[in-house]
Amino acid sequence: MKSGLHFLLAAKRCEIAELQQLTLTATLVDASAGLVHELQRERGMSNLYLASAGQRFGAERLAQVANTGAAQSALCAHFDRLDTEAARLGHGARLFARIAYVLHGLAALPALRQQVASGAWTPTRSSAAYTRLIAGLLAVIFEAADTASDPAISRLLVGLFNFMQSKEFAGQERATGSALFASGQVDGAGQQRLLYLIDSQERALEVFAQFAHPDAVALWQRCDVPSTQAALERMRRILCTAGERGPLNPELSQRWFDICTDRMNAMKAVEDHLSADLRALCELRRDNLEHELSALDGIHSHVAGTPDEAVSLSYFDEPQDATPAAPSYPLGSHLDRSVLDLVQAQAKRLQAMSAELDTTRASLNERKLVERAKGLLMAQRQISEAEAHKTLRQLAMNQNRRLVDVAESVLALADLPQTER
Amino acid sequence: MKSGLHFLLAAKRCEIAELQQLTLTATLVDASAGLVHELQRERGMSNLYLASAGQRFGAERLAQVANTGAAQSALCAHFDRLDTEAARLGHGARLFARIAYVLHGLAALPALRQQVASGAWTPTRSSAAYTRLIAGLLAVIFEAADTASDPAISRLLVGLFNFMQSKEFAGQERATGSALFASGQVDGAGQQRLLYLIDSQERALEVFAQFAHPDAVALWQRCDVPSTQAALERMRRILCTAGERGPLNPELSQRWFDICTDRMNAMKAVEDHLSADLRALCELRRDNLEHELSALDGIHSHVAGTPDEAVSLSYFDEPQDATPAAPSYPLGSHLDRSVLDLVQAQAKRLQAMSAELDTTRASLNERKLVERAKGLLMAQRQISEAEAHKTLRQLAMNQNRRLVDVAESVLALADLPQTER
Repeated sequence: MKSGLHFLLAAKRCEIAELQQLTLTATLVDASAGLVHELQRERGMSNLYLASAGQRFGAERLAQVANTGAAQSALCAHFDRLDTEAARLGHGARLFARIAYVLHGLAALPALRQQVASGAWTPTRSSAAYTRLIAGLLAVIFEAADTASDPAISRLLVGLFNFMQSKEFAGQERATGSALFASGQVDGAGQQRLLYLIDSQERALEVFAQFAHPDAVALWQRCDVPSTQAALERMRRILCTAGERGPLNPELSQRWFDICTDRMNAMKAVEDHLSADLRALCELRRDNLEHELSALDGIHSHVAGTPDEAVSLSYFDEPQDATPAAPSYPLGSHLDRSVLDLVQAQAKRLQAMSAELDTTRASLNERKLVERAKGLLMAQRQISEAEAHKTLRQLAMNQNRRLVDVAESVLALADLPQTER
Repeated sequence: MKSGLHFLLAAKRCEIAELQQLTLTATLVDASAGLVHELQRERGMSNLYLASAGQRFGAERLAQVANTGAAQSALCAHFDRLDTEAARLGHGARLFARIAYVLHGLAALPALRQQVASGAWTPTRSSAAYTRLIAGLLAVIFEAADTASDPAISRLLVGLFNFMQSKEFAGQERATGSALFASGQVDGAGQQRLLYLIDSQERALEVFAQFAHPDAVALWQRCDVPSTQAALERMRRILCTAGERGPLNPELSQRWFDICTDRMNAMKAVEDHLSADLRALCELRRDNLEHELSALDGIHSHVAGTPDEAVSLSYFDEPQDATPAAPSYPLGSHLDRSVLDLVQAQAKRLQAMSAELDTTRASLNERKLVERAKGLLMAQRQISEAEAHKTLRQLAMNQNRRLVDVAESVLALADLPQTER
């Protein structure tokens, strides 16, 4: 019959296997972030090109297409290396489905570029197409954040994901502003969208600051230099305060793009840093677990037979301490008693981890709820994302409730039959 | 390069592997429930035996030990068949750790019985020891409920788990009442505990009714026969209204045990039914997935080369319908377009599943929060579980808030440094 210790060893091996998987996922996150960065640039340049009716950024756009291609090849090489034959449990299905969706988007990229090159699409339409592709890539990263079963790693991933979200809102702001400047005039919808994107950037950065390590937050504060901030705010003011159909100086489009790009590059540097932290943390945890496993293996070969009665009864003792320190390795002479301690410590550790994980994941769930409520409002009322966002924020403010609670109410009402509304 | 369809196939295979795992888990749940049932009986008989100073239920207890042994062997045989070599991702670590804990508890069972046989332990102490063992087994089932990634299966498991919780509270009520009757007198702590156990039974049944299929709820209503209910309520009244240290007729202990046991057996019948439903549902889902997989395989061998431009661009179209019907198999001539539909349908399906799962799992998380808050209050104020439960309920009622919100507040306050309280 298999012993408790046997299952304890098996549990440890599962944790190690999960971390191995997570290390692989971390490199996938890295490669996805790289492609996102290039697609964000290509989106902005395409808007400049389209809004200026092909007068600006023709050559730069073509050069950028090559950069995007290189990042795409790097990511696809990662996809190819994924073991799709071994059916992975635990979110494998969702991760693979996300990748399938991304690959279809990438296959459509040449056709999108043709629409841009020929000037057939408006900047808004081209932007939306690039945004959809990028959203697919971010969904791959979201899936990874939702998979991690180690709280420290999960927190890091939730922080990283929110930072990437913020960067993507910044990228959409760059693209939207680029189209406005290059077209030579503002419009109300564009302005509203800019305000929405600025607000969303800041919200995502708040969540990042809540979950990321203080060092990472400090790094971002160092990278977010005041001179770029000031220049950006000046340009934002020009964009957001101009009257409806008011003229803009198209010559400023280059400057807008450059300032935004400086900020995006600074954000990418922080992302790279977080990615490296993630990989290092995975390595560290794995080393610790391997160490614990070999210590357990050592005990396993020493313990034989059934424990004596006194040891057995201690199973029913109240634990002295709510969170006992992990027993030290190697163990002394009271092996049986120590094995029980180990089992109890492991059970408590996994329980504590699960409690902490719930807290971290709650933020991911809240995000999903808000996004779904937004989507519902957009579909029901035929309004833009910016308007849906504003509606939710307004409701939350008026009712003095959290955004997520308002989102829940919106979704709950959607389940009512139409006639009852 | 691997295609989107390739990853779609891989995602499908992952879902199938998860269901296979779940089918195995379902048999584990079944065997665990069987052992829980026998341990519950043994706990009640041990209390009758101890509280009557060995005058009652001596032979019955010995016969029951044999029944428990048979259920234990059946469960351990299941444990032995589990593949602990293949490191399972997705909750494997937690499941194995729970099993390790259960096995240590079972190893301690003979020592516990010796304390009962010699009359060395009080009924309260013996009861608490059995309850700890049973809690370990229920934790295995909780882990299974937390693992399922199919919303329908997850709902069923959450319903089943809450039903088992309710049955366990009923079992604790049987044991507590047995000790009181057999001892010939009531005490205040025992009465308070009874009220807590009755209330907890009802709460768990409410959650069961919320998540289980209406057929299962109707089945329980048929099984919970009025004659047993009435007899039980009469006996409860005798127990709960007797004055402090008031006398009880020890002759009623047999009758109390029998009435409670009738109800427990009815509950076990419902559990068995739910277990069978679970296995059938797993089978059904798996058949569906296998069917979809082979259809996809068929498409895979037909599709070759890159899709044409019109098909590609449709990637960027707004979906016509928020929840499109799954494309039918086999597909017509527009294979490329259909593959895109499939990818989008799969992405949407997994997203919807994940959203629904969040809702179901929220109830598990709420349970964890309430349990943790209760544990915290017990440790901080040195009070019983019944008192901690009452405190939380009172707070919720006074503040007109949900139990889980009060629990969250209690836990949040615990993070404050001691001096600030």
